[in-house]
Amino acid sequence: MEEKELIEKALNIEKIRCAAERIRPYIRRTPLLRERSMDERLKCRAWVKPEMLQISGAFKMRGALNKILGLTQEERERGIICSSSGNHGKACALIGKMMGIRVIVVLPEDVPKAKIGDIERLGGEVLIGPRIYDERWKMVREEVAKHGYTIVHAYEDYEVMAGQGTLGLEIMEDMPGIDTVIVPVGGGGLLSGVATAVKTLKSTVKVVGIQAKGNDGYVQSMKAGHPVEIELTPTIADGLTARKPGINPYPILEKYVDEWISVGEDDIREAVRLIAAEAKLIAEPSSSVGIAALLSGEYKAEPDENIAFVLTSGNWDIDRIGDILCGGTGIK
Amino acid sequence: MEEKELIEKALNIEKIRCAAERIRPYIRRTPLLRERSMDERLKCRAWVKPEMLQISGAFKMRGALNKILGLTQEERERGIICSSSGNHGKACALIGKMMGIRVIVVLPEDVPKAKIGDIERLGGEVLIGPRIYDERWKMVREEVAKHGYTIVHAYEDYEVMAGQGTLGLEIMEDMPGIDTVIVPVGGGGLLSGVATAVKTLKSTVKVVGIQAKGNDGYVQSMKAGHPVEIELTPTIADGLTARKPGINPYPILEKYVDEWISVGEDDIREAVRLIAAEAKLIAEPSSSVGIAALLSGEYKAEPDENIAFVLTSGNWDIDRIGDILCGGTGIK
Repeated sequence: MEEKELIEKALNIEKIRCAAERIRPYIRRTPLLRERSMDERLKCRAWVKPEMLQISGAFKMRGALNKILGLTQEERERGIICSSSGNHGKACALIGKMMGIRVIVVLPEDVPKAKIGDIERLGGEVLIGPRIYDERWKMVREEVAKHGYTIVHAYEDYEVMAGQGTLGLEIMEDMPGIDTVIVPVGGGGLLSGVATAVKTLKSTVKVVGIQAKGNDGYVQSMKAGHPVEIELTPTIADGLTARKPGINPYPILEKYVDEWISVGEDDIREAVRLIAAEAKLIAEPSSSVGIAALLSGEYKAEPDENIAFVLTSGNWDIDRIGDILCGGTGIK
Repeated sequence: MEEKELIEKALNIEKIRCAAERIRPYIRRTPLLRERSMDERLKCRAWVKPEMLQISGAFKMRGALNKILGLTQEERERGIICSSSGNHGKACALIGKMMGIRVIVVLPEDVPKAKIGDIERLGGEVLIGPRIYDERWKMVREEVAKHGYTIVHAYEDYEVMAGQGTLGLEIMEDMPGIDTVIVPVGGGGLLSGVATAVKTLKSTVKVVGIQAKGNDGYVQSMKAGHPVEIELTPTIADGLTARKPGINPYPILEKYVDEWISVGEDDIREAVRLIAAEAKLIAEPSSSVGIAALLSGEYKAEPDENIAFVLTSGNWDIDRIGDILCGGTGIK
C-alpha cells in the first residue's frame, strides 16, 4: 500500500464518527456560538467553538479519551505516560482518575503553574523535563524502558487525532454553511482530525492553521515544501510550541490545509482581551491565535464570510490572564 | 379577587412557558454545566447556568424580549425607555436594534464604562441620571411625560419576570434532580420568575436569594417581615443595588424563597476568580454572589447537594475583571 492509502486507513471520517460515539458519554458537546459583537472588529461573521468549556478545560479530552478507551485492560494496567505542554496531560490525568489508571505526565520546565497544579490535583504524577521536545521524549522513553508504561502521544497517534476530529464533526453539524475553519496548531493533532472531518464532509470549506511567530514550524515547513526544524522563541502561546511538524500529522495537513499564518504576541494578547470582553470566555493565549490573525489583518476575510474559530482551551495561570486583561504582557 | 390570586394570574408557570415559546428564536438556550472541579471548594455538587453566554451577555435579554415582543405596534413606535444598572439597558438596546425600535436607557452615574459603550454601540440613547433609584425614576417619568415613551421596567413588570423565569424552566428540564437553586437578587425580577418556575414544577427544590452586604434590601426586609428601605453602601456588585424590594416581586419572593443571604466584597472577588479559573467564564461581580455565599460558608451545603448557581452576566469593564483576577480590588 502507498503511504497515502495507509494514512487514509489510519484516519478517516468513519474513524472520527466512531470516536464521537465512543467519547460521547464523557465529553461536553460544546456549542458553536455566533458572536455578532465580534463581527465589526474581525470584519467577518464570527463563530466560536469554546473548548475551554470542554471537560478538563481543553479539547484535549476528546483525543485522549478516544485513545485510552481503546486500550486493552493490560495496556491500562501498565499505567499511562505522556509528554505535554499541559492540557493533554491534564486530560490524561482526569481520565486516569475517572477510570482508575495510573498517569505520569512529563512537562517542560516552563509550564504554567496552573497546569501542574491541575494535573496533581487530579492524581497525575508530574515529572518536570527539559523545554526541548526531543530531550523530553528521551526522558519519556527512559521511563517506558524502566516501568513499561503505555504511551499516549498528544499528536502522533491516529486515535488521538480521530478524537480531536470530533470537534470538526460538531462544527459541520451545527453550521453546515460555515465557510472557513481556523485552528491553532502546535503538534498538529487537532488540525489533522478537524481538517479530515471538515474536508471530507465539505471539500469547499477553507481550513486555516495558525501558529505563533517564532514557533511556526508548520508555517515554515509548508513554505519550504518539506518538514523543517526551527529554533523556538519564547511565546505566551505556550501550548503551541513545537520545533518541527509532527511526523504523522504533516502529510495530512499538507493535503488538507489551505492557508498557514503566524501571529505576533501583541495580537495574541489583544485576542485574549476581545474573547473575554465579547464572548465572556477565558481563553489562554494558545487558544486565541485564530482571532489574532484577523485582528492583525494577516487573515483577510470577506465581510459575509462565516468563520469558525476553534478556541482550544482555558487552562492558564489566572493572574496572568488578569494581567493581559489589564493591558499587561501576561509574562511574569 | 384577593392580592394573592391577582399575582397568580399575573405570573404563573403557563405565562413562563408562553414566554419560553415567544423568546426561543432570539435567545441562546444556555447549558447547565456540571462543574466538578468546583466541588471541593464549594463543598457540594456544583452546577452553573452561564447567562454571561446569553445573547447580550446577560439573562436580561429573556425578560426584555418577552415584554417587547408583546407590545403593540403603537407602543413600539413611541420608543422604549428603561432605567437600568446596565444589563437590562443593553438587552433593550440590542432588541431595539434588531426590531428597529428607538431605545432610551437611563443609567446611574457610577455605571461601569463598558456598559455605556455597549449600549451606545447598539444604538441605544444613554441618559446619565442620579445613583439613587427613586430620583432616576423621576427622570424616567419626566421623559415619558415629555415624549410618550413606553416603559420597560427591569423587574416590576410581570411580562419581564415571566421571561426571566424561562431560565428556571431550563434548569429543571436539564437537571430534574437539582436540590437547590441559588440566584443573585437586585430588584427581584429574575428570582420572581425563577422561583415561580422552579417551585411550581417541584416544590421541594430549595430556592435561595443572595445579595451584597450593605445592598441587601430584601435580606433586611424578609428579616423585618415587611419591606424596608436601606442606605446603600458602594459595592462591586453594581448590578444588584436596590434600596428597597420591588413592589411586585416582594410578595412573590416572600412566598417562594427559602433562604436569604448577604455576602461581603472579598468573597465576591474570590468567586469571580474561582469562576474564571475553573469554569473559564467571565462573571461580573453581581453574577458571582451565589458562589461567594458558599466560599464564605454563609450557605452551608450538604456534600451531596446538587446546587445550581445562576451566573447572571458578564458585562463589566474587562480591565477591572483583570484586576480582580490579579488579586486586586477591581475598584478604580
